[in-house]
Amino acid sequence: MSDKKEQKAITARAKDYSEWYQDVVDQAELAEHSPVRGCMVIKPYGYAIWELMQKDLDARFKAKGVQNAYFPLFIPENFLKREAQHVEGFAPEVAVVTHAGGQKLDEPLVVRPTSETIMYDVFSRWVQSYRDLPLLINQWANIVRWEMRTRLFLRTTEFLWQEGHTVHASEEEAEDFTKQILDVYRDFAESVMATPVIPGVKSESEKFAGAVRTYCIEAMMGDGKALQAGTSHMLGQNFAKAFGVKFQDETGTEQYGWQTSWGVSTRLIGGLIMAHGDDKGLVLPPKLAPYQVVIIPIGTTPEELEAVQSKAQGLADGLIAEGVRVKIDTRDLRPGPKFFEWEKKGVPVRLEIGPKDMANGTVVAVRRDTAEKQNLSEADLIDAIKDMLEQIHVNLYDKALAFRQAHTVKVADYDSFKAQLEGNFILAGWCGSADCEATVKAETKATIRCLPLDPLDQSSGGKCIYCGQEATDQVVFAKAY
Amino acid sequence: MSDKKEQKAITARAKDYSEWYQDVVDQAELAEHSPVRGCMVIKPYGYAIWELMQKDLDARFKAKGVQNAYFPLFIPENFLKREAQHVEGFAPEVAVVTHAGGQKLDEPLVVRPTSETIMYDVFSRWVQSYRDLPLLINQWANIVRWEMRTRLFLRTTEFLWQEGHTVHASEEEAEDFTKQILDVYRDFAESVMATPVIPGVKSESEKFAGAVRTYCIEAMMGDGKALQAGTSHMLGQNFAKAFGVKFQDETGTEQYGWQTSWGVSTRLIGGLIMAHGDDKGLVLPPKLAPYQVVIIPIGTTPEELEAVQSKAQGLADGLIAEGVRVKIDTRDLRPGPKFFEWEKKGVPVRLEIGPKDMANGTVVAVRRDTAEKQNLSEADLIDAIKDMLEQIHVNLYDKALAFRQAHTVKVADYDSFKAQLEGNFILAGWCGSADCEATVKAETKATIRCLPLDPLDQSSGGKCIYCGQEATDQVVFAKAY
Repeated sequence: MSDKKEQKAITARAKDYSEWYQDVVDQAELAEHSPVRGCMVIKPYGYAIWELMQKDLDARFKAKGVQNAYFPLFIPENFLKREAQHVEGFAPEVAVVTHAGGQKLDEPLVVRPTSETIMYDVFSRWVQSYRDLPLLINQWANIVRWEMRTRLFLRTTEFLWQEGHTVHASEEEAEDFTKQILDVYRDFAESVMATPVIPGVKSESEKFAGAVRTYCIEAMMGDGKALQAGTSHMLGQNFAKAFGVKFQDETGTEQYGWQTSWGVSTRLIGGLIMAHGDDKGLVLPPKLAPYQVVIIPIGTTPEELEAVQSKAQGLADGLIAEGVRVKIDTRDLRPGPKFFEWEKKGVPVRLEIGPKDMANGTVVAVRRDTAEKQNLSEADLIDAIKDMLEQIHVNLYDKALAFRQAHTVKVADYDSFKAQLEGNFILAGWCGSADCEATVKAETKATIRCLPLDPLDQSSGGKCIYCGQEATDQVVFAKAY
Repeated sequence: MSDKKEQKAITARAKDYSEWYQDVVDQAELAEHSPVRGCMVIKPYGYAIWELMQKDLDARFKAKGVQNAYFPLFIPENFLKREAQHVEGFAPEVAVVTHAGGQKLDEPLVVRPTSETIMYDVFSRWVQSYRDLPLLINQWANIVRWEMRTRLFLRTTEFLWQEGHTVHASEEEAEDFTKQILDVYRDFAESVMATPVIPGVKSESEKFAGAVRTYCIEAMMGDGKALQAGTSHMLGQNFAKAFGVKFQDETGTEQYGWQTSWGVSTRLIGGLIMAHGDDKGLVLPPKLAPYQVVIIPIGTTPEELEAVQSKAQGLADGLIAEGVRVKIDTRDLRPGPKFFEWEKKGVPVRLEIGPKDMANGTVVAVRRDTAEKQNLSEADLIDAIKDMLEQIHVNLYDKALAFRQAHTVKVADYDSFKAQLEGNFILAGWCGSADCEATVKAETKATIRCLPLDPLDQSSGGKCIYCGQEATDQVVFAKAY
């Protein structure tokens, strides 16, 4: 918000990726650390990106028949304990309210680390008959998980997310819905975030605490590490049994419901930064850019400035009428610092208009993703901009996919595995043993990101990368955020 | 969600207003009590109303240049204590996190009861120069205030709201912005909620803890009680001094910022219920109705049903294309229970289509607000429905205004005051003494709702209703939610 930031340089990615990330978050004014340990302040520009994500995802969920609702922030401590794996997974990281209204509470309240337990207690009363199914609920909410090492957007004590929770009459239907949502996430990542992802299944040790099976999408960041960008859990009847979510089927028999839960969070903003950002700062895919076009009027005299600003307003009005998000930067600053600032903020297209351009009936357009400069005719500016935004989306996606392909290696032995792990996704055979998985993690910090749903490679699994036994699957290993 | 509810009757308002309210909330499926004391579950139909409120208000704030952001749920206990009046007002009702991540915290964290303190600590770093002003921030968030006696939507331990927080370079500008927002709230109440409100100023004892002045809008509910429907606070420099929100003005002199904060919450849904509801249930103003039109296809044979349903779909598509929110109820239920259910849920217009209507090229339309039935020609259905929705809005507003006028009495002495208090707004003179105000409240439970900004009555204040001294103002007294 103050002018001082404009002078600071962004650390080069190659020099220190982690510093680069922090610099981009800071200088693009996306978020900052708050005085409360581990909690972030999401600044207006960062929040505007989140709003665009919300709007797009919300429409996709509603198209599936999902309804939004809101459940309490607090969970009675005993609820969390009812599903054995769930409490084991979440108890160590909860924040606990022990006092309220000036008194000690009889039973402590946990600040929700996720809402399965509080929702399913309620669902047990909402669901009575097969006619009440499927029950398809989503909530946009804040979540608290006490994290020791935090990083803005990627891992914070409090974050924002959506969590979908459904109940179905059959296992097949629940399984199918879990996959439908995974596909919503995949398509959102690809067609909105311009980020290729690998849809897959988590190993037993990486699945959600309480789930039967966790599906996920995994994206590669600019340093070759993985980011889990969304999860969709098949919960089976685990929670239904713990909370009594039962229904009478068409024959009058009482049955437990089959459930799913699924979510994406503000960590997607971290993913966006690391999937596309460069040494000049943020690079936003057009569909998530608060401003898709920034117009910089250029003139030396007040008369010139007035004329170009009026022209800029006319062009902006035309673009806005066609649904393009446009900002005209009329601040009393030289063009240079303005270019620099909007580059850092990742605005897809910069338009420059000066007196000469006006005389020629043209506008200078500069793409953020390629730095390519071209003269556009005012007459067909709207179509040209729409095309350009589409091209930028495709280019960002293609670049990210090419990068991932260039940084995905198949290895046949553990030495190559260790040698190639840094900066790469590793395709390797795995015998299915949790011991092998744990040892690899302990020795290399690599985790099994997923068992891909579609083979990434035509060959079969071969041997387990660690123990050399017959592999049951070919999996993706990587270091991850 | 289950069929059982359809049989229950709604308590008549005249019999027990409080029971009636609870029945409407329950049977219109708006919200329910959760297992966590004082916290509510907002059900999909209630949440859909909140989403419509959010969408409308959010656009109004953005049109004023306000940007959304997000600040932490938790506030360090010492922050709350920095503004003396503020801590006095809020400390008794906060929930406190004392343990997290398995350990006792060094400093307890308060769950936000409002965000002035956490935000202004951050603002003190964002604001450096007059060029950073005005800073106009809004947040949509959950809030926790430990309440002893709760009522769904009206008073709950956790609720949802928006809170706007701004910093300005001058007192005049802050004061002006406070009033601009009050006017946004007034216009929203009138033109969206179809609810007349009295804009006014709170007395010293009723103002926000830490504000210089609190502006409010007060609405009359169906039992003649008042509901504070929105507040806009002029904070002066109170918080700026406590948190060091300072800027260099154009002459280079350091000055404290002038601040405002303002909010409306999910209690507006309670206001909506009580402003318009009747003995049949909820009555929704069209602009906040999740479904503005429900279509009930009627037929006795499967062939008939198929034909009317197909016709209904065609009509619905036409309405939806024109921006009308439409639901076709094709459930396997008799028409009677469907009528009953959508009446309870307050849907503004019900359309019935049977084989005879189809043959005549007509549709039967029934207005929820008047129960008036009319045949509409299919040919100009869209215009007729749009007109009808507009008429319903106007009728609801006019009815609520007439009701308030009929239940607003001017009194000159304390005996009449006490005799007429039940079910009315009382206009009376007040000397400005907090003692008189407190005594009236203790003796009658009536509070000064506001000092109206525009006189409700041409006469001047006269004498104080309690002490008989010269009145400084004519004020509105009422019992309130």
